[in-house]
Amino acid sequence: MTQTPLVTLDDVRDAAARIKGVAHRTPVLRSRTLDELVGAEVHVKCENFQRIGAFKFRGAYNAASRLSPEQLAKGIAAYSSGNHAQAVALAARELGTSAVILMPEDTPLSKVEATLGYGAEVVTYDRYTGDRVAIGEALAIERGLSLIPPYEHPHVIAGQGTAALELIEETGELDALVVPVGGGGLIAGSATAAKGLLPRIRVIGVEPEGGDDTKRSLAAGHRVSVPVPRTIADGQAADIPGQLTFSVNRRLVDEIALVSDDEIRTAMRLAFERMKIVVEPSGATALAALLAAGRITPMPTRVGIVISGGNISADRFSEIISGRGPDARV
Amino acid sequence: MTQTPLVTLDDVRDAAARIKGVAHRTPVLRSRTLDELVGAEVHVKCENFQRIGAFKFRGAYNAASRLSPEQLAKGIAAYSSGNHAQAVALAARELGTSAVILMPEDTPLSKVEATLGYGAEVVTYDRYTGDRVAIGEALAIERGLSLIPPYEHPHVIAGQGTAALELIEETGELDALVVPVGGGGLIAGSATAAKGLLPRIRVIGVEPEGGDDTKRSLAAGHRVSVPVPRTIADGQAADIPGQLTFSVNRRLVDEIALVSDDEIRTAMRLAFERMKIVVEPSGATALAALLAAGRITPMPTRVGIVISGGNISADRFSEIISGRGPDARV
Repeated sequence: MTQTPLVTLDDVRDAAARIKGVAHRTPVLRSRTLDELVGAEVHVKCENFQRIGAFKFRGAYNAASRLSPEQLAKGIAAYSSGNHAQAVALAARELGTSAVILMPEDTPLSKVEATLGYGAEVVTYDRYTGDRVAIGEALAIERGLSLIPPYEHPHVIAGQGTAALELIEETGELDALVVPVGGGGLIAGSATAAKGLLPRIRVIGVEPEGGDDTKRSLAAGHRVSVPVPRTIADGQAADIPGQLTFSVNRRLVDEIALVSDDEIRTAMRLAFERMKIVVEPSGATALAALLAAGRITPMPTRVGIVISGGNISADRFSEIISGRGPDARV
Repeated sequence: MTQTPLVTLDDVRDAAARIKGVAHRTPVLRSRTLDELVGAEVHVKCENFQRIGAFKFRGAYNAASRLSPEQLAKGIAAYSSGNHAQAVALAARELGTSAVILMPEDTPLSKVEATLGYGAEVVTYDRYTGDRVAIGEALAIERGLSLIPPYEHPHVIAGQGTAALELIEETGELDALVVPVGGGGLIAGSATAAKGLLPRIRVIGVEPEGGDDTKRSLAAGHRVSVPVPRTIADGQAADIPGQLTFSVNRRLVDEIALVSDDEIRTAMRLAFERMKIVVEPSGATALAALLAAGRITPMPTRVGIVISGGNISADRFSEIISGRGPDARV
């Protein structure tokens, strides 16, 4: 007996049709230096060039665009301190509706301003005492808003999968796909697209060393939580996989590689100096896993990776590269 | 009586055919944020993604590829502490010959290593006591090498013009083209291509405030020198225009805008944070001129700019962005 998957390749294709002309079809870059260092042919899907600077816009827009006219008229909502906040804010603006974004009180001002800049209303909460899911759901009910979760939704997962779909459409056959893992939405969508197109492809997720909840969960066969990780990869500081994303990932993800903060720094520096692109820490983990010895074995011959985002200030980049400043931004 | 120009649109087209498949056809990026800030439609030709990380490869390869088999067998030479060194080294490797690069003794090690990395031999000299042109020419004669100058050569100028040719092929009609000015090779080639394709286009060069030798020379109607400028834009620290480049530029360049080091910093930061691309100081001056109030008046409606290079280490970028470290790298 086989269960019908929650998200299929056709769902990813539908999402691709919906986001066409709204989201960017981001470039796939190559670098001779990178190929030589890794010892493989590496195809780099650059979601740092996506609208709002990260892949998150794909899923947010796909989900928001499927709401009914009545739902859209009332507005949408999200809880996020990161890229999903801006993604939902922009999706709302593109669809001619309003967005309310729930953010922790101590969110860096630049992220609040970016979200406000897309025309959203920002509501803050104390993340040490409040539960964002509960507060977000209460807010949505109170105001009649449609809540778009950061990863626990089939339309969000299908939307995120369009990055891998575009990558493979451009490269053709690949031996492996390497994708960062946070809540698990990007890799769930990517794995759905990749295995749908190339059944024999090896799908490798990457987590920061301290935040290996998905690796442990895959090993255990069920979701396990880890202490809230301290890592520069703030977009991957999840302590437990999503229920929905894990149900996809346990079926389609072949392995998880772990990377240290120093390996992420090295990858960010290489992207900067050799590829001339800006990558945020969470966005650099797939690159870090390829570059660091022994993290991926055996090394595939022809590999695609997703650079998931580039939202980092020049000042924070300088701090991270020099090893100054706080490592944890959880 | 009209004099035949030294470099024509056809020369640029010939160069484009020669570099095809060897040089990258670099992307032309757009940014909504940039358009809003500038109040114009801005098309950004990204030569930071060119091979060796700067436009210089275009001219070097075009010039080297026109040498006879006998000349190529003996090898090529160049004097440069910057991007031209790597450009000639890579051109030699691509053409299956050797290169000798004359560099100042105090060239940053990273630049020496990059040049050696392309298989070139590096010869050093003391730039406080030696004249690089004289030493370079003596070296070339002694060893039978063909010297490829950084800008004073019609093939080099024509090669650099291919960046503007590609840009305008992609954008069509533009009101203005804004290009950094160092020795004047990039703008001479760019102006040749641009005015050849769009006779009414306004061609605007950009120099750092302290290094306004071309602006002064255009005003005077003949080449004038300025004190060696102190600026973070090390690729534009020329103190006098080239003879050949000036003969082109006095005919085709409409105006020169000046930018301060702080305006360059602001442009580098914007490129980093909003466009997610790495730009070296000299590479950011055209962007800086658009962003800084009153540097270009009236502001054109539809404008193309050249980001000329992205060769800067993450550490040096951090220094410059924070205002730490030495400002002069002359």
